[in-house]
Amino acid sequence: MTDFFDRHRNMLEDALTALETRAFWTPFPEIPSGKIYGETARDDGETAWQNLLGTPFGLPGHPEVGRVGAEVSPWGPELNISYPACDPAMIIETAGTALVPFAEAGVEQRIGALLEALVRLNRMSFLIGHATMHTTGQAFAMAFQAGGPHAQDRGLEAVATAYAELTRSARHAVWEKPQGKHAPLVIEKHWALMPRGIALTVGCNTFPAWNGYPGIFASLATGNPVIVKPHPRAILPLALTVRVLREVFAEAGLPRDAVLLAADAPGAEITRALVTDTRIALVDYTGSTAFADWIRANSRALIFTEEAGVNSVTITGTDNFSGMCANLAFSLSLYSGQMCTSPQNIYVPKDGIETDEGHKSFDEVALGIKSAIDALLSDADRAAGVCGTIVNPATLERIAAARAAGEVIRESAGTGHGRSATPLLVKVAAGEGMQDAECFGPVSFLVPCDNAEDAIARASAIAREKGAITAALYAIEDATVERAAKAFAQAGVNLSVNLTGNIYVNQSAAFSDFHVTGANPAGNASLTDTAFVASRFRRVMIRRPKAA
Amino acid sequence: MTDFFDRHRNMLEDALTALETRAFWTPFPEIPSGKIYGETARDDGETAWQNLLGTPFGLPGHPEVGRVGAEVSPWGPELNISYPACDPAMIIETAGTALVPFAEAGVEQRIGALLEALVRLNRMSFLIGHATMHTTGQAFAMAFQAGGPHAQDRGLEAVATAYAELTRSARHAVWEKPQGKHAPLVIEKHWALMPRGIALTVGCNTFPAWNGYPGIFASLATGNPVIVKPHPRAILPLALTVRVLREVFAEAGLPRDAVLLAADAPGAEITRALVTDTRIALVDYTGSTAFADWIRANSRALIFTEEAGVNSVTITGTDNFSGMCANLAFSLSLYSGQMCTSPQNIYVPKDGIETDEGHKSFDEVALGIKSAIDALLSDADRAAGVCGTIVNPATLERIAAARAAGEVIRESAGTGHGRSATPLLVKVAAGEGMQDAECFGPVSFLVPCDNAEDAIARASAIAREKGAITAALYAIEDATVERAAKAFAQAGVNLSVNLTGNIYVNQSAAFSDFHVTGANPAGNASLTDTAFVASRFRRVMIRRPKAA
Repeated sequence: MTDFFDRHRNMLEDALTALETRAFWTPFPEIPSGKIYGETARDDGETAWQNLLGTPFGLPGHPEVGRVGAEVSPWGPELNISYPACDPAMIIETAGTALVPFAEAGVEQRIGALLEALVRLNRMSFLIGHATMHTTGQAFAMAFQAGGPHAQDRGLEAVATAYAELTRSARHAVWEKPQGKHAPLVIEKHWALMPRGIALTVGCNTFPAWNGYPGIFASLATGNPVIVKPHPRAILPLALTVRVLREVFAEAGLPRDAVLLAADAPGAEITRALVTDTRIALVDYTGSTAFADWIRANSRALIFTEEAGVNSVTITGTDNFSGMCANLAFSLSLYSGQMCTSPQNIYVPKDGIETDEGHKSFDEVALGIKSAIDALLSDADRAAGVCGTIVNPATLERIAAARAAGEVIRESAGTGHGRSATPLLVKVAAGEGMQDAECFGPVSFLVPCDNAEDAIARASAIAREKGAITAALYAIEDATVERAAKAFAQAGVNLSVNLTGNIYVNQSAAFSDFHVTGANPAGNASLTDTAFVASRFRRVMIRRPKAA
Repeated sequence: MTDFFDRHRNMLEDALTALETRAFWTPFPEIPSGKIYGETARDDGETAWQNLLGTPFGLPGHPEVGRVGAEVSPWGPELNISYPACDPAMIIETAGTALVPFAEAGVEQRIGALLEALVRLNRMSFLIGHATMHTTGQAFAMAFQAGGPHAQDRGLEAVATAYAELTRSARHAVWEKPQGKHAPLVIEKHWALMPRGIALTVGCNTFPAWNGYPGIFASLATGNPVIVKPHPRAILPLALTVRVLREVFAEAGLPRDAVLLAADAPGAEITRALVTDTRIALVDYTGSTAFADWIRANSRALIFTEEAGVNSVTITGTDNFSGMCANLAFSLSLYSGQMCTSPQNIYVPKDGIETDEGHKSFDEVALGIKSAIDALLSDADRAAGVCGTIVNPATLERIAAARAAGEVIRESAGTGHGRSATPLLVKVAAGEGMQDAECFGPVSFLVPCDNAEDAIARASAIAREKGAITAALYAIEDATVERAAKAFAQAGVNLSVNLTGNIYVNQSAAFSDFHVTGANPAGNASLTDTAFVASRFRRVMIRRPKAA
């Protein structure tokens, strides 16, 4: 027995409080500073990263029939790291051996180990930052946050939400039913918390840790062994995670095979073989709607998804035109629009809007956003630091196709660092077009609308029909905000209103913002609500008459 | 505005406490006594029942294109009650009109109205008892409990569980993120609780209220309009429920079309048309696995089910042989085995067991149970009071088929009241046979096993593979109980140990027992855990910078 649970009890309790109040809270600082992470943390992370390159990644005791790994940094270099490869049946078989001991270890043992793993991962945030940067193509500052503390926040959120639900009702009860004049019926009851089975997390290329941790940690917390199937271009961040988990599990007396890495090669993915195996009871998936549909049609598992969508900005007016343009410029440029929260369609009344700078025509609004992007990205290094690189070459083809969708307001171009592309802005016609589907990457469509009401109606309609994770609104009148709030609530999309400062529609804060509502086609999993954890385990009772 | 929420707040808080402690609690007394329900309650219920017979059932304001209704009591008489009929598209359209106002009414308004409705239904328990008796074929005492207070308990449990989840996290927050030396980022956040959409409850013939209330009340509590589609042979209990709900909704300023009755005729069921409509977002279904599979394949809704299974008794020894036999006799006879919790297969070591009466051979155990059933049912009126009647004529055919499955230990026969059948006991061979699937009704198979371990292994295996809602175990040694507890927990079935008194494996108590674990094929819905309510609504945020 270890004392991990006691050691981290305060952090867990703070997390539980934050989940209720939804106020700002995190135990994992987001600033990549030596003052916070230790004077040598930056250099240590860099050294650890360099030492990993070109080596076989060690996972002691992990099943292995060969090696696989072909990661190439979108910034340039090949990683030349190899990972254990095994066939899907073998890895599921191995996970199965952990099922009973992992469940029987009990709630505190598992939760304690998971909290310890998160704290150790946090200490490794610089290394994870490099690993994330060179698999996702994010700039380092973003990679540090998204792969490090922000992902750890989401993991902790899942653990805390699971803990709350696992402990919601008594594990033992004495049930005493009055029988009038006779002695009462007295029954002793005990509930075992049983995991659903073997879980599978299918990772994505852009946010392997941030999008992977919620499902991984929720399933582990509720007792399900987890097979982590990373995207073949973004294995390292999740391989590091699996290694830390296995180390802590071994120390905690838990079966380390309760978490396994199912690495594969581009073009030889084993996802389908894993998903269709009837022993897989849970699937967490982040990716395209087409593949999510395939999983739904071919798996018997309970499935949690984050899928495609069309995020929107609706501009009906603003009392801070330059602030709005600067804010949107950053939102559109950040990681070159490759966030599930990046805005795509910008709905603006065709006759323009009222602003603190007077009336602005549609074209003046478009120009304001364009100019703000140009200003933001005028320095090549800064541009690379904001935009990062393009993780998937197919995105460059989409940019090319989007140019033909209308009038190019702002041209996309490389930053000069890695495979990169700055935002393309295209003014489209009001009718149907390319803007009606997700166009993943640094592409935004400016859509002229009849008026503010029409803009709200279009933005909320596309969220309802195609899915959306974020929506932004700029409005002066409270009445407009209220009407929009109803429309977007009914479309099931989180709405950010009048963001002009250092907070962006792309950002989703753990413990406060529920990421994805589950109420439109952009996904059925909300990070992290009770529904995300409650059905990952089941309660099974044994009852018997109490001895007199 | 009404004060329903304040009026029933104490009851709600007591329910929330019970859900945590799982101790005995109910606000709805189960004894059909004038002392409890009022001196005239029994007569009033009888009169109200008589006045309903042969009349058109009134549902003011309910859509209606014609009338339907062909209920015939399994006890004999035709009910001759007609209900509003409407086509599926129209009823879904009508429910859709309630969607927005019902959601916007808010949590307290809805929960208050639902609590008031349950209290009014409770006062009507005698009428509901008659309605349940003559649609399900239960004896009156059971019909009163199962259709009245016990169903109301399950409804209240669903409302309380939903309320807990609806109020789990703050609806408003001020999120203040430190920015070092700069002023903090301050964001105001508000969450709207949005229903999933239009819900459908597909009722069953045997327990229309008990099995219907959890889904109906959970969906209504979370803001989803509900279409109640009763079994065509058991409309009245749910029609009475819908009427009470609509009355209370009208008083509470809620749209009464938030609950609708979709009555249909045997052979002309509208279930498929309702289920396949893409506007149906939630389905609660109790019935066969075959039809549940059809729903899963043909509906886009989130689906909660209770399906078929094979419940078992495993007898490895007892220190109260006569008590065991008497207890099992009642469990097998109660409502002629037509409960989802009724035992079917009885696994006994072929070499017999040790008991307080010395060694008993397999045949002596079988004879002991047979004799206890004979004694229990020796009086015709008492037999009818325990067994009730057979609700579906197909059950009589199954009894006939089961006779050929092995050696008949006890013959089934009518009680002399209505369409009835007492328990059939058949000793089967150890190999495969009719005992390997659900044989709904008063049929039990005695299965000879190699020994106690083999008996536990078989009983737990069939639960895992075919589903089971209950399992009973008789054992003397604690070690045997412990081994069995693990096996049945892994099979996901609730286990009752050594029941010999006035508590029966068939019984499931709201607020304490989770009915159906969701961990084997007998159903995915556990009554009532958080998973049953949490995904019936979604949280949608609006956030904006806080004004300075």
